[in-house]
Amino acid sequence: MQEMIKVAVDAMGGDNAPAEVIKGVINAVTLRQDIKVYLVGHQDAVKEELAKHSYNGTQIEVIHAEEVIENAEPPVMAIRRKKQSSIVVGMNMVKEGKADAFISAGSSGAVLVGGQVIVGRIKGIERPPLAPLIPTEKGVSLLIDCGANVDARASHLVQFAKMGSIYMEYVMGVKRPKVAIVNIGAEEEKGNALVKETFPLLKNCPDINFVGSIEARDIPKGDADVIVCEAFVGNVVLKLYEGLSSTLMGVIKKGITGSFKSKIGALLVKPSLKNTLKAFDATEYGGAPLLGLNGLVVKTHGSAKAKEITNSVIQCVTFKEQEINEKIRRNIAVSPAEEE
Amino acid sequence: MQEMIKVAVDAMGGDNAPAEVIKGVINAVTLRQDIKVYLVGHQDAVKEELAKHSYNGTQIEVIHAEEVIENAEPPVMAIRRKKQSSIVVGMNMVKEGKADAFISAGSSGAVLVGGQVIVGRIKGIERPPLAPLIPTEKGVSLLIDCGANVDARASHLVQFAKMGSIYMEYVMGVKRPKVAIVNIGAEEEKGNALVKETFPLLKNCPDINFVGSIEARDIPKGDADVIVCEAFVGNVVLKLYEGLSSTLMGVIKKGITGSFKSKIGALLVKPSLKNTLKAFDATEYGGAPLLGLNGLVVKTHGSAKAKEITNSVIQCVTFKEQEINEKIRRNIAVSPAEEE
Repeated sequence: MQEMIKVAVDAMGGDNAPAEVIKGVINAVTLRQDIKVYLVGHQDAVKEELAKHSYNGTQIEVIHAEEVIENAEPPVMAIRRKKQSSIVVGMNMVKEGKADAFISAGSSGAVLVGGQVIVGRIKGIERPPLAPLIPTEKGVSLLIDCGANVDARASHLVQFAKMGSIYMEYVMGVKRPKVAIVNIGAEEEKGNALVKETFPLLKNCPDINFVGSIEARDIPKGDADVIVCEAFVGNVVLKLYEGLSSTLMGVIKKGITGSFKSKIGALLVKPSLKNTLKAFDATEYGGAPLLGLNGLVVKTHGSAKAKEITNSVIQCVTFKEQEINEKIRRNIAVSPAEEE
Repeated sequence: MQEMIKVAVDAMGGDNAPAEVIKGVINAVTLRQDIKVYLVGHQDAVKEELAKHSYNGTQIEVIHAEEVIENAEPPVMAIRRKKQSSIVVGMNMVKEGKADAFISAGSSGAVLVGGQVIVGRIKGIERPPLAPLIPTEKGVSLLIDCGANVDARASHLVQFAKMGSIYMEYVMGVKRPKVAIVNIGAEEEKGNALVKETFPLLKNCPDINFVGSIEARDIPKGDADVIVCEAFVGNVVLKLYEGLSSTLMGVIKKGITGSFKSKIGALLVKPSLKNTLKAFDATEYGGAPLLGLNGLVVKTHGSAKAKEITNSVIQCVTFKEQEINEKIRRNIAVSPAEEE
């Protein structure tokens, strides 16, 4: 018998929990028979929602968690105090080997802190980066790091580049992924102190396909598969991506429904436009992995719908099947960077 | 007789020089009789182009400059060696008081270096920031700093906030402009070391209307008028703004002309869409000023068309009329920040 891949899912996290989370989980176990999902959350709420669906009962198990960590709570405190929260209970399952991965649409801060404190880093990994996929003209790129650990060192960025490369190659199937560092010019001598220090280290790194600097202007073109930066810059890129896309969509929608003539036009273009924008949506690929941990933690958008949850569960399966953590252990955890 | 405002314009800078530059200048002097423009560039090329238009001859004078600084040249070297370039000649006119302002669509690096080295900083100003206007849902915001001086200190950011405030209030006419610092969360305790150090300084600054942190996601909403950040982050925001807007437009255009039905729709929505996108275009307001100099230097886009040049000339007039540099001297150059 094939080994089941065990994924714990935070049934209480995000704006659309538990309904959309549970819908997404059921879709995932219907798609693949080798997945077992542990729905972590308040059992009354979870069971009530589950009762609305039909599914293979052996593939889903409810794990009771009395508490929920709210977005507004200070993450470190919340992780320490709310031992019975869905995030802490789910992460403990990964730590204890009862689950291979944990997915949450809940508090980003708590997920990041919990990943480091509860699940723990792979030995030799200095920092676990949060690495969302962002949409580009050509598909998606991995933006690494967008986490909470700002003011990174050059050695951290080198590890991000290597982990990102492994992820894009083996989870996303990109052969020899192009790695670039976010910079304010294309030339090697450009940049701030961190980038100037990191650039030659990446250039001399034999394990990755380093293509040099990438200016923010070229990120949406998909010129690189793995986009390396420290978390403050990554956060700015990620949030601006989301904010500007949404603002532009709003502006365009308003613009094309402004006159009667264009209102009719808007009706005609709507289906094509919808399809196009769907292609320009990274949630189609799942959530953002927190890499370099003893297990996998995936953070989805707070606004995640069923589809993003389903894709995140499948993503965990690929992660496990491709033995990403073994590859990270073998290729990075023993690299010279850690010995600095 | 009213005093003429004297603006030197780089006739050789940018992708569309000299034709669009000269067209823009002629529009500007036609709009306002109190402007005198010095067109700095190779006299043969400039005069040949000027001959195609009719204009008030007393308002435009050609200043010969034998050389041109190319985009690819290392800026410091270029400024030092090409004494007869349009950028160096034009900036020397500002330095010597022969012109109030200099506008260039040429090499960003050379304009930034030349501004500091030739025109020079106002006494007490630690760094001259480059401050482009970016489009938002509500109009425009000033993004300060997007220049070449990365790894800024907290005291620099405080001066940026003050100069940006003065610019938005007196050049753009925004009453008590809202000042925010780019951050990765809304709370005061969030951020990297620089932001954490700067936040309380801005909070305790009596001259500005500080509204706290702004996440990159909220920049396009226009939640702040003056967006303070160090140059690396500013550059990433600015370039991503341009790149993502252009990519999304391309994706949408392709999407709505994908089927026959939507092709017809596209024709109907085109005029409204064009108007809307025009509103979402900061070049309507002119170029990016380099603030804190003994005079004014304005950098327009390399791709600037006549309209951006015209608007930049008018912007220089407002800058002079509103005595921005006197306000900066009075309010900032004597502030405690410089005494650190």
